[in-house]
Amino acid sequence: MIQRAFGLTTDLYELTMAAAYFENGINSRAIFDLFIRRLPNHRSFLITAGLEQALEYLSEFRFTDSQIDYLREHPSFNKVSKEFFDYLSEVRFTGDVWAMPEGTVAFGMEPLLRVEAPIIEAQVAETFLLSTINFQTMIASKASRVVAAAQTRDVIEFGTRRAHGTEAGLLAARAAFIGGCIGTSNVEAGYIFGLPTFGTLAHSFVMAFENEDQAFAAFLRLFPDTGTVLVDTYDTIAAVKRLARDFGSSVPAVRLDSGDLCELSKQVRAILDSSGMSATKIFASSDLNERSISDLLSRGAQIDAFGVGTELATSFDSPSMSAVYKLAGLERDGHMLSTIKLSDHKSTYPGAKQVWRRVGDNGGFAGDLISLADEAAPQEGVWQSLLTPMIKKGKVIAAHSNTDDTDPATLRAARLSDLNNARDRARDQVGKLPSELRRLDTTSSYRVEFSERIHEERKRIEQRLTLANHVNL
Amino acid sequence: MIQRAFGLTTDLYELTMAAAYFENGINSRAIFDLFIRRLPNHRSFLITAGLEQALEYLSEFRFTDSQIDYLREHPSFNKVSKEFFDYLSEVRFTGDVWAMPEGTVAFGMEPLLRVEAPIIEAQVAETFLLSTINFQTMIASKASRVVAAAQTRDVIEFGTRRAHGTEAGLLAARAAFIGGCIGTSNVEAGYIFGLPTFGTLAHSFVMAFENEDQAFAAFLRLFPDTGTVLVDTYDTIAAVKRLARDFGSSVPAVRLDSGDLCELSKQVRAILDSSGMSATKIFASSDLNERSISDLLSRGAQIDAFGVGTELATSFDSPSMSAVYKLAGLERDGHMLSTIKLSDHKSTYPGAKQVWRRVGDNGGFAGDLISLADEAAPQEGVWQSLLTPMIKKGKVIAAHSNTDDTDPATLRAARLSDLNNARDRARDQVGKLPSELRRLDTTSSYRVEFSERIHEERKRIEQRLTLANHVNL
Repeated sequence: MIQRAFGLTTDLYELTMAAAYFENGINSRAIFDLFIRRLPNHRSFLITAGLEQALEYLSEFRFTDSQIDYLREHPSFNKVSKEFFDYLSEVRFTGDVWAMPEGTVAFGMEPLLRVEAPIIEAQVAETFLLSTINFQTMIASKASRVVAAAQTRDVIEFGTRRAHGTEAGLLAARAAFIGGCIGTSNVEAGYIFGLPTFGTLAHSFVMAFENEDQAFAAFLRLFPDTGTVLVDTYDTIAAVKRLARDFGSSVPAVRLDSGDLCELSKQVRAILDSSGMSATKIFASSDLNERSISDLLSRGAQIDAFGVGTELATSFDSPSMSAVYKLAGLERDGHMLSTIKLSDHKSTYPGAKQVWRRVGDNGGFAGDLISLADEAAPQEGVWQSLLTPMIKKGKVIAAHSNTDDTDPATLRAARLSDLNNARDRARDQVGKLPSELRRLDTTSSYRVEFSERIHEERKRIEQRLTLANHVNL
Repeated sequence: MIQRAFGLTTDLYELTMAAAYFENGINSRAIFDLFIRRLPNHRSFLITAGLEQALEYLSEFRFTDSQIDYLREHPSFNKVSKEFFDYLSEVRFTGDVWAMPEGTVAFGMEPLLRVEAPIIEAQVAETFLLSTINFQTMIASKASRVVAAAQTRDVIEFGTRRAHGTEAGLLAARAAFIGGCIGTSNVEAGYIFGLPTFGTLAHSFVMAFENEDQAFAAFLRLFPDTGTVLVDTYDTIAAVKRLARDFGSSVPAVRLDSGDLCELSKQVRAILDSSGMSATKIFASSDLNERSISDLLSRGAQIDAFGVGTELATSFDSPSMSAVYKLAGLERDGHMLSTIKLSDHKSTYPGAKQVWRRVGDNGGFAGDLISLADEAAPQEGVWQSLLTPMIKKGKVIAAHSNTDDTDPATLRAARLSDLNNARDRARDQVGKLPSELRRLDTTSSYRVEFSERIHEERKRIEQRLTLANHVNL
């Protein structure tokens, strides 16, 4: 198995910049914002996720001797001093992190996370933070759509085999739970995060017996309370009739995995009901997504729960999220100096920020405001601040990462408790969005504005930078 | 950091099936094929990848005590006997694996890997094998397209921050190298796999200095041989002119990361050439993929190397591969009995198989044949067999996983040697494909047929299964 080495889980340019900062005596405090400019395709809001892994990474951030040996021999570093490598062997993350708690509804341009730290520490963390927050937020946001489409039915995440490797499968299960799934097929996600895990049987199991009936009997004998019987290996309707004849109401659930799920579910429901099996649930899977689920339910499909794999674990219709990590301030001569990036279409906003959300008279969300962190909430209306302190001087202060215990059972109970909170938060906040924004194909967007002071600060800096960089040509 | 626990890196249904097999005294030898039914969208061939991780997983396959304790308390397993958990604590993978070596060109319906083992061992491995082979093969196949579009120019994989988590970033870097990239920005991929790593500087680095010139000077002083200077923070053309004035031919390369890359590259090339900097390379990035690269080069862009991130590390235009893992045979009463799945559109082919590739008179590939493993090569023409033994009785016999050494430097040298072989194999085999198949938008497909004996065997089994499962209703 690959022994992961997280100190080097970064892009080379983070380390070449670190070396250049170090050799030039630059390591003053910097502010970086992690945010997405525009929402991904087919998404009208985000559900934040991945913070637990981001905080763990920062709190355990270090380089091993073997990693430093590797860097010493890297061709890029042949002019770098011994002192830089000594620095690397000692460096820890000593900064502060503010972030939206997991399960928060978020939008474009809003910092999901803000790092304030000596610039080398803050810079090297960029790659890990982006990869982790981008991926899990993307999956939680997709899950929220799938769960909404399923209305009151349960959705289980089933996608590890199609996820981008097994860690992606594990973290997709976690993020999908935050987005509203009731659990996953991934056992490791149960073991590590305490998520409820679900599973039935495969076609190969049915094929391994002389005939289907023997397979059903063997399975139901061992799993009388939880067994969901896969009925489509040979002939779905015939299989359900035989199940009804042989087992009746003791069958917990049947699973449809191919064919016309709407039509089959109606026929199967009728057979079950006419056999005194009204308590037997119908579970469906087969390349489902929010659109096909919505369509099935609108056509009256008799399905009690959905298993969603590929589409959920890969966010298939929008398989990347493009959050960026941008410098917003840098200390010079003891003062924090705000800064921005000027390039066309990729420009940024200056300074440490807070995100405020207005709560309307009906309790719903009525627009967000991005202000400088030292601005008070707007006078008019009720506003909630979304960015809260997560790490202070390198120490994780958010309750949910308080997992010094290394006993797996204790760890997963703590993690599950936090995941339940995040899932509740997401459900609560999605319910407060304008209803138009929750339609699968909505074209409306939520209002996000910058404060006057940010606009002014930005203009001022623009003039300063233009002066500094254009006059000397 | 999450402590991964690979025994449980599987779907729950693999373990409920395992328990049901165990409790019913079934653990005879089974044959499973891992294959994809249809090629993913926008792909006319695959490049296999991920086998090294699959073989490592199988050779290290086991459950820890803590994992077994977790399963004991799982609600699904409350009727399962103590003997099953004792079995799990001892189980190792004892079977055989045949597979296509990494870097092999492959097509739909062809087994990429075949497992022959006691059915419980073979079944539980399904999820890990699918996730690993699906992901890396998808990325290597995408990389092959991007590299082809770049013609003779170098392509570097840049996508960890947009990959589906950091392990996906690491493995995408590995798979992209097999597909033809010259390296990656991911330092961990350098540390673990020995891949060449590349990096420049970020806009934040430029912004951290009083002005751009100071940033350039600080960077080039430290990286005089490898420094690629990012020139688009404020004004690309102005920055290149100042670089030429201040540093001249000592600048190794410049990087364009925004704007009209074609037009900018021509202007930048002209400035560099007129300043005696014809050796200075132009590197470009900015949401590139095979189509935009092909378009840039057809319009005469003056770009020497490309950095490709999101599109490559997520296979953005086709972000999942749907390989399946299907039972093809099961021993009964001492005889291996072939089997198939019958369901419409999801049917399978029986028995242990070999894949043969015909080599035409010109040395090019002229069609594949999937036969039973005990069939000889067809009489007529020259044929190569693609599936080779990788694990025998649980022992990895393929040279490339012979990494008992645990010294990181030794390990990465061994892995890199294997990766270079895989990359060479892919380049060689892609070169032997019909040229029509290599066009980015080809609609033609490669001929893959099943042998007569497989067709006959399939018909025979179909009759037997229909009889066993339909007459008893």
